[in-house]
Amino acid sequence: MTSPTYDRIAVIGCGLIGSSIVRAARTHGVVSEITVFDASPAVRQRVLELGIADQVSDDPVAAVTGADLVVLAPPPGAIADAAQACAPGLKSGATLTDVGSVKGQVARALAEATPPGVFVIPGHPIAGTEFSGPDAGFPELFHNRWTILTPSPSEDPAYAAAVERLTAFWEGIGARVELMDERHHDLVLAVTSHLPHLIAYNIVGTAADLEEVAQAEVMKYSAGGFRDFTRIAASDPVMWRDVFMLNKDAVLEILARFTEDLQALSRAIRWGEGDKLEELFTRTREIRRGVIAAGQESAEPNFGRDRDRR
Amino acid sequence: MTSPTYDRIAVIGCGLIGSSIVRAARTHGVVSEITVFDASPAVRQRVLELGIADQVSDDPVAAVTGADLVVLAPPPGAIADAAQACAPGLKSGATLTDVGSVKGQVARALAEATPPGVFVIPGHPIAGTEFSGPDAGFPELFHNRWTILTPSPSEDPAYAAAVERLTAFWEGIGARVELMDERHHDLVLAVTSHLPHLIAYNIVGTAADLEEVAQAEVMKYSAGGFRDFTRIAASDPVMWRDVFMLNKDAVLEILARFTEDLQALSRAIRWGEGDKLEELFTRTREIRRGVIAAGQESAEPNFGRDRDRR
Repeated sequence: MTSPTYDRIAVIGCGLIGSSIVRAARTHGVVSEITVFDASPAVRQRVLELGIADQVSDDPVAAVTGADLVVLAPPPGAIADAAQACAPGLKSGATLTDVGSVKGQVARALAEATPPGVFVIPGHPIAGTEFSGPDAGFPELFHNRWTILTPSPSEDPAYAAAVERLTAFWEGIGARVELMDERHHDLVLAVTSHLPHLIAYNIVGTAADLEEVAQAEVMKYSAGGFRDFTRIAASDPVMWRDVFMLNKDAVLEILARFTEDLQALSRAIRWGEGDKLEELFTRTREIRRGVIAAGQESAEPNFGRDRDRR
Repeated sequence: MTSPTYDRIAVIGCGLIGSSIVRAARTHGVVSEITVFDASPAVRQRVLELGIADQVSDDPVAAVTGADLVVLAPPPGAIADAAQACAPGLKSGATLTDVGSVKGQVARALAEATPPGVFVIPGHPIAGTEFSGPDAGFPELFHNRWTILTPSPSEDPAYAAAVERLTAFWEGIGARVELMDERHHDLVLAVTSHLPHLIAYNIVGTAADLEEVAQAEVMKYSAGGFRDFTRIAASDPVMWRDVFMLNKDAVLEILARFTEDLQALSRAIRWGEGDKLEELFTRTREIRRGVIAAGQESAEPNFGRDRDRR
């Protein structure tokens, strides 16, 4: 057993990600003591029943008092409010981080809400399943997945040390850590995560609204490709609403390019230009090889692929 | 062991689907003798090496001579030519079927190419992976997957018997069989398979063309949703080119609806209408439940999900 990276941590918001952090931190012994706060009494009750935390508090200030690390894990749109609610309890020298899928707006809100002496290091673990709530979490969720931290450009050595310590925490629960500028994070994630989700939600909605094809038929014959979209489009509605509200500019920019490209494809189909289609389809196949080479297609549970099987 | 459904079958085109049929037919003992023809000498050589067929022929007429069932399994755009090439060898009373993902145009081509006395029953197994070629096939590919047959509206009892026999063949290799009108098939598949593939190809292409985000980054952080699209967009380029050429009208119709819906989503993001997004995202979650209830999310290998792991 490695020695704990933090003595006391507080996890604010205990859904899929929050409860996975709690479980992983305990399983890997990277912290000594874990306190959970969640705004929902039902979630707090459930966390108590699950017995995964040392304390469950109904007061955010009390929850973070004395904590060396505070992890904000509510839906992205609630992170700013959660930071303000916790602020009075944050001790000097504590690290405040979050797990939101958008960083630019969230990072600014965290910085504004936080008293001096607290190290604000926004973060985002790229891991998840289409399930939600404290029961959905599991300790291996972050294994071999990337967590991106977007530290501010401070040159304070104490801040640098806090970034190193938070990196050690994530690595201690199995993740790989990358540091990135927050604007670049939001653009990269708009491409690799936000647009794919938007497209999946949209296609499932389009299929549901067809008059000529019954919904039962769509489900029955979904093995031809559609099924993968339904899994993505089953992700948490509130979280994803917040993502699109908070990362509006990058998402609209990428979406405009996607739509332009789709119109060119549509035109090629209409005019029977099979060679243009084949050229694109051959090129995209190469990218798949790159994804496998980058180790992003692995035996790790991801996107519920394993969990569906249980 | 059940008694064979057909004595002799010929499989024309031995890629992923053709070689899976060959393997499955032998494994399940549903036929006595299997002959394979493929237009490619390299594929014929490989089938010989794999030893999965009883004979490998370099002449389509010889391959189908004496066959009770002929399965055309080249890329969809080559099915009409394959039918014409085989026609002189087809015996009276034989059944001619195919495995193409589009049925309307293909069914007309089969009917035109075939001499009287041959039962033409177009078919489409909804099963596949993103891998191609004779090595990619495996005998369990059709287990618990739907195969759709689109028989002509003939009232000839001999034709009805031929449909029953072909149904028994597919069920004998583990599939579930549904009969459907060919136009309806093409619309249902445009929604559940063709549009999902087009969208996946398109999003992977859009991501590859971005200047601001390196391709390596897209791959590295693909676990947030993008990775699922890369798997779909790795499917056989020639087959999918043919699908979009042959099912143009249905695909363009569904694509137009998808684009309309996407523009509404884009507008909701631009104007900060989070409630509209949340409403859609909640509705699509229900559809996922339907897919699971319809048994389409199962432990069966599908879409390469298991095969990636090997």
